[in-house]
Formats: sequence, structure tokens, C-alpha cells
Amino acid sequence: MQTQTSHNDHSGSDARQSAPLSATLLTIGDELSRGEIIDSNAAFLGSELTALGVYVRKRIGCNDRLEDIVAALDDAARSGSLIFASGGLGPTSDDLTVDAVSAWLGVSPVQEPVHEERMRRRFAERNFAITPNNLRQVRIPAGATVLSNRTGAAPGFSVEKNGVRAFFMPGVPREMKPMFSEQAVPLLSAVLPQTVTVRRIYRTLGLGESHVDHRLADLLSSTEAQRHAQQVSVTIHYRLAFPEVLVTLVASGADATRLDEALAVLDVEVRRRLGHALYGTGEDELSAVVGKALLARGQTLATAESCTGGMIGQTLTAVPGSSAYYLGGVVAYDNSVKRGVLGVSEATLQEHGAVSEACVRQMAESVRTLLGATYGVSVSGIAGPGGGTPDKPVGTVWLAASSPERTLCRLIQWPGDREQVRKIATAAALNLVHKLMFPERLSDPALRL
Amino acid sequence: MQTQTSHNDHSGSDARQSAPLSATLLTIGDELSRGEIIDSNAAFLGSELTALGVYVRKRIGCNDRLEDIVAALDDAARSGSLIFASGGLGPTSDDLTVDAVSAWLGVSPVQEPVHEERMRRRFAERNFAITPNNLRQVRIPAGATVLSNRTGAAPGFSVEKNGVRAFFMPGVPREMKPMFSEQAVPLLSAVLPQTVTVRRIYRTLGLGESHVDHRLADLLSSTEAQRHAQQVSVTIHYRLAFPEVLVTLVASGADATRLDEALAVLDVEVRRRLGHALYGTGEDELSAVVGKALLARGQTLATAESCTGGMIGQTLTAVPGSSAYYLGGVVAYDNSVKRGVLGVSEATLQEHGAVSEACVRQMAESVRTLLGATYGVSVSGIAGPGGGTPDKPVGTVWLAASSPERTLCRLIQWPGDREQVRKIATAAALNLVHKLMFPERLSDPALRL
Repeated sequence: MQTQTSHNDHSGSDARQSAPLSATLLTIGDELSRGEIIDSNAAFLGSELTALGVYVRKRIGCNDRLEDIVAALDDAARSGSLIFASGGLGPTSDDLTVDAVSAWLGVSPVQEPVHEERMRRRFAERNFAITPNNLRQVRIPAGATVLSNRTGAAPGFSVEKNGVRAFFMPGVPREMKPMFSEQAVPLLSAVLPQTVTVRRIYRTLGLGESHVDHRLADLLSSTEAQRHAQQVSVTIHYRLAFPEVLVTLVASGADATRLDEALAVLDVEVRRRLGHALYGTGEDELSAVVGKALLARGQTLATAESCTGGMIGQTLTAVPGSSAYYLGGVVAYDNSVKRGVLGVSEATLQEHGAVSEACVRQMAESVRTLLGATYGVSVSGIAGPGGGTPDKPVGTVWLAASSPERTLCRLIQWPGDREQVRKIATAAALNLVHKLMFPERLSDPALRL
Repeated sequence: MQTQTSHNDHSGSDARQSAPLSATLLTIGDELSRGEIIDSNAAFLGSELTALGVYVRKRIGCNDRLEDIVAALDDAARSGSLIFASGGLGPTSDDLTVDAVSAWLGVSPVQEPVHEERMRRRFAERNFAITPNNLRQVRIPAGATVLSNRTGAAPGFSVEKNGVRAFFMPGVPREMKPMFSEQAVPLLSAVLPQTVTVRRIYRTLGLGESHVDHRLADLLSSTEAQRHAQQVSVTIHYRLAFPEVLVTLVASGADATRLDEALAVLDVEVRRRLGHALYGTGEDELSAVVGKALLARGQTLATAESCTGGMIGQTLTAVPGSSAYYLGGVVAYDNSVKRGVLGVSEATLQEHGAVSEACVRQMAESVRTLLGATYGVSVSGIAGPGGGTPDKPVGTVWLAASSPERTLCRLIQWPGDREQVRKIATAAALNLVHKLMFPERLSDPALRL
């Protein structure tokens, strides 16, 4: 993953160094080290803290061993003034975080009365006996500030040692996330930077990461943008979410009005430079952007898929409410289905093959008519690893999008593995529908999709 | 995530302490700290190293700053005799791993001739000019052992300092994984534990994690299994890959013959206890298991999907070679498609609704006939978040699987979010086809799917 960060030259310092607060993330648990689960907690905390203006300098993962947890805390305390830890607060003898933090502070674990009372009440209601293990998980280190657990049994807690503030939360994401947002963040507000931070996401398709980077490279030094950017600290981040490239503009400053003004100018400039590679902004993925456009016009879509095997329909229907504009489609994986259900002619299949302009044109037009949709979109390609020929190597994909007025066809050739070819074919198909709806997007010859 | 580990009592020690080799994982990149991507590399390396008998003691994540990478290497070297690092080998000025390792070792970076020559050749073929940035990424620290990169431009490398061996690999998973398996592991073989370690995966569907755990809980203390297990060290791990529960048996011992004998006995016992919840073993997911069974019988499958919107087809066609048995299907998302293409009767939709036994029965039988397949499978349900009623709440899904002889229908009710409901519906649909092919699997009343 390649990430380029551009800083405003006139802010006088790198945001990393100027950030008043550095944090270390600590994720505790053998199952993480054995790779049985992926550490999604660190990603959640990293993303949230970055948005709050906290610089995450280090991530540490350690196992459920008391001395390793204590060593990790000492290490984390050297890297910054904040520690955010998750894991090891459960009921079993493997869960040692309370004991380790108590040892680190030189205090004893004590029962936390509110969570203990709640646990006793719930067990009584179900006529269950409480075991010593159950009671283990309602302990906290003596003197710690409780972080209430709304979605689980074990309390979290916050402690301070030598000016370092540390937060300890459960490892289960559905307990950790609300505890962080509702309990830890309010406690942090006194120490958080007194700046406003805004994050804007620009979503592009059809340009490589290096081309997107090139188009935005000197954004912050262009005259008008610069004049405004001087009032705020701005960084640009690039992220490849194959096959899309996402651009994130992170801006912060003490004055909210100036921040808004600077962002408005930068926004115009970013849009101008990205041109028709830009298909949307914010959290909405391509499928949701296409869906909202269809919904706004009261139009509908049908799909005819060969090599994607249902991925386009699956992607469209992952969006809640998609039944308002997506009618359905035909997965024409075998040529018999292309012929029998979609009426692709035997002549087309014989003369041009299933991976051809003639075939996808017939597929898109046919599924549009068959389902009575405003638009039909189709894909036929060679996803590999087998099936390639010198003429049509693996990665050759034909696409078509059809409206009552016209049918657009496109050829893409993308050397890659089966999963990549199918993903790019799905994105290219949805993008072609979007271009059919917004024909001005067809005008950029630099776009590859 | 709940993980229970059972150790052979007679092995005399915890695997953590007896393992001769400890490793630290190091993942490098600002984008990880900012939470823009989840650290899947650490999970992959943790899982692979655990299987090789290496104890992963610590995970460190650091940003693309030279001094932080050097400090992390010093730290990692204190935690064990092996370091596995990924990230920071790209072409941009942010990619500092080669410089940091060179500084750590006190050597200079040098060009790696094989990867440089390959890069020059590829650029020449495309008439591209090579930039200094391109050449940056074919450097390695002087004296390092090259790890060849089969799927990307940048070489990895391995170095040794004060008895600690460190491996540096790209951050892109599709480059890192083959480099680890094909380049790093062979270099490790001299230092790996001289025991044979075997890992067996048992794949189950239809039982909750706690029920699978309960069925296997005393596996290692049952008489005959125990007699054999004493000769080897055996652990059992459970992992929820929603909605499947995977059981991994990890066995190791110095004597390969004894290990095989013990595993044969344990295998019989595990299969007996898991019963018909077990649908397969090894790496093959349910879609591949169903596919191989179809292929072996020369039979074919067609799909009719409503709430899954193409997910069943997409899952089936993710398997290379699936065109030999999967013909395709109809995504009947809107009721007009259920009527118009699949011939579901207006009476059925009026009297029973689209989410009903009658509807999925007609969908499965119709798609089987329409596409001329041996089997038809169908799904219609309420994935949410909207659309639920008191009678049919969100999570209500009807499924059917049809053969020339009969049609099986099933109702599942799974409270969960949209993604979960669609995933469980897809797994349940494929499982129902598998049960139709292997009717003995229909006999276990404890199975929920």
C-alpha cells in the first residue's frame, strides 16, 4: 500500500511532529498473535484517533502473559502520552489485563461495584450461580476510573501513570467501539487538540494511483489554494481500494470559519484536477452512488453476468433499499444460458465468441428488455486462471451498458488473478452505467475504465 | 472470539514456553496506524508461523519514519531470535525500510541487480522511462540475502544481526504471501524445530461455536485417543468463519510414524463427534466442496436468488473451473422477475408472499428446468434493515434445493445485520444442495442449517 502525504509548506512543521498528542495502541491476546483473528480493533482506534487529531505513533500486540503486558505498557508509555488498549478483560484465567495493569501501577485489583451488581442481578434473574471466574471480569485496578460497558459484562477503565493516560477496553469489537466513543472520548476532551479536524473523501475510478497522485501533487502550492491552506493544516492521503483510488483530504485549524473557507477552495481545485475520474465523495461506494442516481430519476437496472457470476448483483444488493431500483438479472455463466435465456444468437457465439462486443451488446440489450428495466448492463470475460488464448488472454473483459437510446460497449484488459479480474469487471460495469447516466464522464480519454 | 486450547497433559509443558523459537512481527506503514487498512499481514504471518512451530511473542506496528523503524527493530530483536517485517519497500520517498535496515546494520543500500534488470527490461518493453523513484525500490541493504519477488517489483531480503535473523517483505499481501512461503520458509528450515507439525482443518456448518466445542471438549481424554495423543503434542483451536465453525487440530512430535498413527485415531474420533455438521476438511470452502461433488458426478447446478442478489452465484464462480458444473441462474430481486422469468404464480405471491415455502419451491424447480441443470437452488428472504413484519421479521429466509427426484425446502430465522443474513442464506443454500447430494447429512436434528 502506497501512501503519499503532502504537507502545507507554510504550516512550518510536519503534522506528525507538531501534533501535541501521540498515542500507542496496544492489542492483547494470543489469538491475535496466532493469526486466528485479524486485529480490526487497532484499525478502528487508529482511524478514530486520527480523526480526533491524535497521532498514532506505534502499535503493539502482546500475548496474554502478565510480564509481557507490563513490558508493553512500559514501552507504550515511552512512545506517547496516551495508550489505548483492548483485550484480556474476559472471565478466564487467560485474561490477565487487570492483573498486569495493577502490577504496573503497584496497586491491587478491586471489584467494580456497579458492574458486579448488574452481573449478580442478571444471574439471579436466570437462576444461574455466579462462579469466581464470572466475578474476575468485574474487577478493575484500585483507583482506576471506570469505563462503563453498555454491551457486555466486563467494565473498562482508565488509569494515569507519570503523565501518561491509558485506556483499557474489552477485545470484543461490539463492546470496545461504543466504550471508546461514549466513555473514553469524553474523558479525552480536556486533552484533545483545540482544533477542528475535517476529513473529506474523494472517490476515483479509471486512473492509477500514481496518476491520481500526479494530478494532485502540487495542489497545496497552487496560488489560491495555498493562500487558504496557510490558515489551516492540510494533508492529502491516497489509498488504493482496488480498483478504486480514494483521496482523503484532512484539514485542521483553530478557526472553523477559516477552515470551511479553505476547504471550499480546495474542494473546487481537487474536483477540477480529478475531472471525470471522480465519481463521488464520502462513504458511498460506486454501487450506492449509481443506486442513488437511479432512485433520484425513478429508473431501474438489470444485469447480465458471465465471468462475474453474480458479483455485480451482489454488490448492488449489498446496499439497503436497492430493491427500489435494481430489478435483478441473469447469470449467464454457461453459453447455453446466454443463448436460451438471453437470446444471444448462435452466429454471434460461433463468429465472435462469448467474450466479444457483439455478445455483451446482445446480453445487455436483452436483459434490459426481458426484465423491463431502464438500463441493462452486461459482462463477459476471461477471469482465469484457465481459458486464455493468444487473442484473448486472461483479463480480457467485454462490457456493455444499454439504455432506451443507446448501448455503450467497452473492452478492458487487466492482467491479474481471478479475483482481481472479477472485481475490476464489476467496478467497470457499474462505472459504465454511471457514465451512461452522466455522459459528460465519457469525455476524458485518460480514464482506463 | 472464543478459543479453547487443550494441551496433552503428558507433554509436560506449555507450548509457549517450550518452543525454542520466538518471533516478532513488524508491520510498517502510516496507513496502518491511521486505520486506513487492517493489518491482515500480521494475521497471515502469525498463523503460518504458529503452524511451523514458531511462537509469535510480539507484534509491533510502526510508521514510515526511519528512527521509529530502527527503534522497532532493536525492540523486536530483544523479544526473540526471528523478525518478520512487511511494508515500506515501495517506490516513494515514504518507503524507508531499506534505509532503516541499512542504518540498523551500519551498511549502505545497494541496487539488487536481478530485480533491477527485470524492471529495466519491462519498462523498455513498454517504452516507459525509468525514474529514480522506480530504482529506489530495487535496493537492498549491502550483504543482505535477496528474497525474490515473483508477483511485484520490489525484492525482499533477509539479514542477520547478533544472532537475530530478520526477514523484510513487501506490504502488499499478494507479494508478501508467496515471498514468505516460497523464499523465507526454505531459508528458515535449518533453524525450525526438528519436530513434525501437522495441521488438520475440519469444516462444520449448522452448530454454534459452543456446541462444536462441547462435542470435542474431552476429545483428548477419551481412552483410545489419549493413548495415542500421549505420543504427540496436540492442541485444538476453534475459529468462527461466519457462519461456519472451523476446528483446527495441530499435532506435533519428533516421530512422524507415531504422529500419523495418533492423527488417524483422532481423525476417526473427531469425525464421529462432529457427525453431519462436518461438511469437509482442509482448505476447500463449501462452494468448492459442492463443486467437486458435482464435478465427480458430472452434474450441474443453477441458482435463483432473491435477497442474496447474486451472492450464491458469485461464491460458486469464485472457484476456478466452476464453469464445468455451474450453468448460471436468475437474480429475481424484484417480484416481476420471479413472475416473468421464473414463472412464480401470482397466486403464490398473493397468498404466501415472496418469502415463503411455495415461492422458493417454484423458484428452485423453475430455474432447474429453465437452465436444464441437474439441481436448482433458490433463496428468498428479508435481509433488512427494512422490510420486516411481525410474521416475517428481518432474518427470515426460505430456501429450496431441487433435484429430478425431489425438492427440499428450509426456513431459517437468523437475527443479524444485512450482510450476516445474506451470508448465512448463501451458506445455507449451498449446504442444502450438498445435503440433497448426500442425504445422510439430513439425519442430524441438532443442525440448524
